[in-house]
Amino acid sequence: MQTLQVDLGERSYPIHIGQGLLTQSHLLRPHIHGKRAVTISNTTVAPLYLDSVQNALEGFTTSAHLMPDGEEYKTLDTCNTIFTHLLENKADRKTTLIALGGGVVGDMVGFAAAAYQRGVNFIQVPTTLLSMVDSSVGGKTGVNHPLGKNMIGAFHQPQCVIIDTDTLNTLPDRELSAGIAEVIKYGLIRDTEFLAWLDTHMAQLVGRDPEVLAEAIFRSCQHKAEVVAADEREEGERALLNLGHTFGHAIEAAMGYGNWLHGEAVAAGMVMAAEHSMLMGWITPAEVQWIRELLQRANLPIEPPSSMTGADFKQYMSVDKKVLDGSLRLVLLQKIGRAIVTTDFHEGALNQVLNREL
Amino acid sequence: MQTLQVDLGERSYPIHIGQGLLTQSHLLRPHIHGKRAVTISNTTVAPLYLDSVQNALEGFTTSAHLMPDGEEYKTLDTCNTIFTHLLENKADRKTTLIALGGGVVGDMVGFAAAAYQRGVNFIQVPTTLLSMVDSSVGGKTGVNHPLGKNMIGAFHQPQCVIIDTDTLNTLPDRELSAGIAEVIKYGLIRDTEFLAWLDTHMAQLVGRDPEVLAEAIFRSCQHKAEVVAADEREEGERALLNLGHTFGHAIEAAMGYGNWLHGEAVAAGMVMAAEHSMLMGWITPAEVQWIRELLQRANLPIEPPSSMTGADFKQYMSVDKKVLDGSLRLVLLQKIGRAIVTTDFHEGALNQVLNREL
Repeated sequence: MQTLQVDLGERSYPIHIGQGLLTQSHLLRPHIHGKRAVTISNTTVAPLYLDSVQNALEGFTTSAHLMPDGEEYKTLDTCNTIFTHLLENKADRKTTLIALGGGVVGDMVGFAAAAYQRGVNFIQVPTTLLSMVDSSVGGKTGVNHPLGKNMIGAFHQPQCVIIDTDTLNTLPDRELSAGIAEVIKYGLIRDTEFLAWLDTHMAQLVGRDPEVLAEAIFRSCQHKAEVVAADEREEGERALLNLGHTFGHAIEAAMGYGNWLHGEAVAAGMVMAAEHSMLMGWITPAEVQWIRELLQRANLPIEPPSSMTGADFKQYMSVDKKVLDGSLRLVLLQKIGRAIVTTDFHEGALNQVLNREL
Repeated sequence: MQTLQVDLGERSYPIHIGQGLLTQSHLLRPHIHGKRAVTISNTTVAPLYLDSVQNALEGFTTSAHLMPDGEEYKTLDTCNTIFTHLLENKADRKTTLIALGGGVVGDMVGFAAAAYQRGVNFIQVPTTLLSMVDSSVGGKTGVNHPLGKNMIGAFHQPQCVIIDTDTLNTLPDRELSAGIAEVIKYGLIRDTEFLAWLDTHMAQLVGRDPEVLAEAIFRSCQHKAEVVAADEREEGERALLNLGHTFGHAIEAAMGYGNWLHGEAVAAGMVMAAEHSMLMGWITPAEVQWIRELLQRANLPIEPPSSMTGADFKQYMSVDKKVLDGSLRLVLLQKIGRAIVTTDFHEGALNQVLNREL
């Protein structure tokens, strides 16, 4: 097992990464401060792992609440079913929620924890690669609105993150690939050495080699923890983590949540950001091609949906959280391994990218 | 005009109290940091005061959103109509929300501000006595759930609070009285001198004497600001502000939100807390009677609804936020002018109070 610390003063917490951690109750128990723990999962993950978690909670007053599986259920209404469960079970302010599942579960349970009785503790137990390397770390929580992704939410840090890499054995291939998109992202924005490592190990990563997976997760979480510690509320550097996300969110929203996986949309979005960076003269066509091929080897899409027009993109991008006071801010690549947030991009270059006139 | 400061470090903010403040745009404008301000009110208050606020916002990009009036609309669903308005109007992270109305509007707009894009700024412009002296100050925001009042929410401090006492001219008598309940509460929990002043000036207060009203609001806000500065997240002293609220919330929930006004339920609840304190031997029957008479002179109820049984109370009290790890915590009066939070009360005395066996 490897352990990382997210350094946020009195809100600091550990990330444990390793095999078979779900059954190691001594990892979970010190982070539950009251008498009651409520595990919240979905109908896909619960049959596989809920029993392990509930066994590890022996001695606490426990209950479990299941939600339907899918991004399309990441709504205020589903969140309300969590509140109803908590109230029916008379959960008090010292209750700890345990989010068992992927990013949708983690984001929703985190927001429910932020809002229930104005804030209770929660623990992240991510079971998808995407949530292990991204959403379970850093305290961004929330739900979607029909008019925009993650538009309703809170910053609320977990008490700890427990990453049991064994849970990846049951993850569908498509979701594994979606997670790899966010792994590649860390390399693109801040670590060329990691990119080279990924280039060398991509086949083993896609083939679920346990040691390669664990290393990729560890290095991704390390990046995430560093960025979050430096800028918890995304007033600066943290925005770099959104490489590909402004385009990606537009794809997810336009196609209907859940049809494109988040990581798939981010992969296509990162290609668009790379193309935009190329049009700015910052990276070369060969580098864009190298990025495309790396993503393709991870079985990820490298083009936005052909049904989306430039106008579609603009409609959805105009309400993106990266918009500040009406001016669009984009994350682009100044070079491979260094991202920047900028409002100073050529409108014409953006239009070329959105209209696929490359 | 009088100005108080709520002292919370970098989250500090001013409370301005006086006549005709709505039209004084220099009070509002320095607290709006982006280009966009969205005023949110209800269909009762907007026809009276929305124009004044929108005029004061000249030069900003503005819009307004109206909600139906009443505690029964203080729900996640109504909150969602705010999010829809914000997204339809492409409101970004630097948008400032302005809550124009009573406590229901302030609590909901505050929560919407806490959750929209994980947090935007907001300004409180309370138009009822209750919200002026209580809910607009201190950052408690939230909505009700059918199973419990204010069970979904956030701590989110406003940028400033603007109290225009002229808006009380249009307040119905019943709501004026409901506000006086919270004014009396400050005296009961921490200020005997203020209680004596209220005893002397109750007729003028009920008669809406402008100077007496302004003084009562100023002294109430001073108490609220002091308590909140000492204990923002209610880990200690702030819980004293809940005198009468555990009983009161049960009354509100059992009777259906909106049938008893919050202040009315708190008034009956404070009598119950006083009776309980008397059974503990802490205050005298004569003091309980003095409290009853003071509340009665403010035209407030001094008995819980006759339809409520002890079992009804217990059902609703068991999910109250003052319950910690299964043990009920009550705010009682150690003496007139000094409240305490305690789990160490006689169960028998509580039962006597709940069953009205006094």
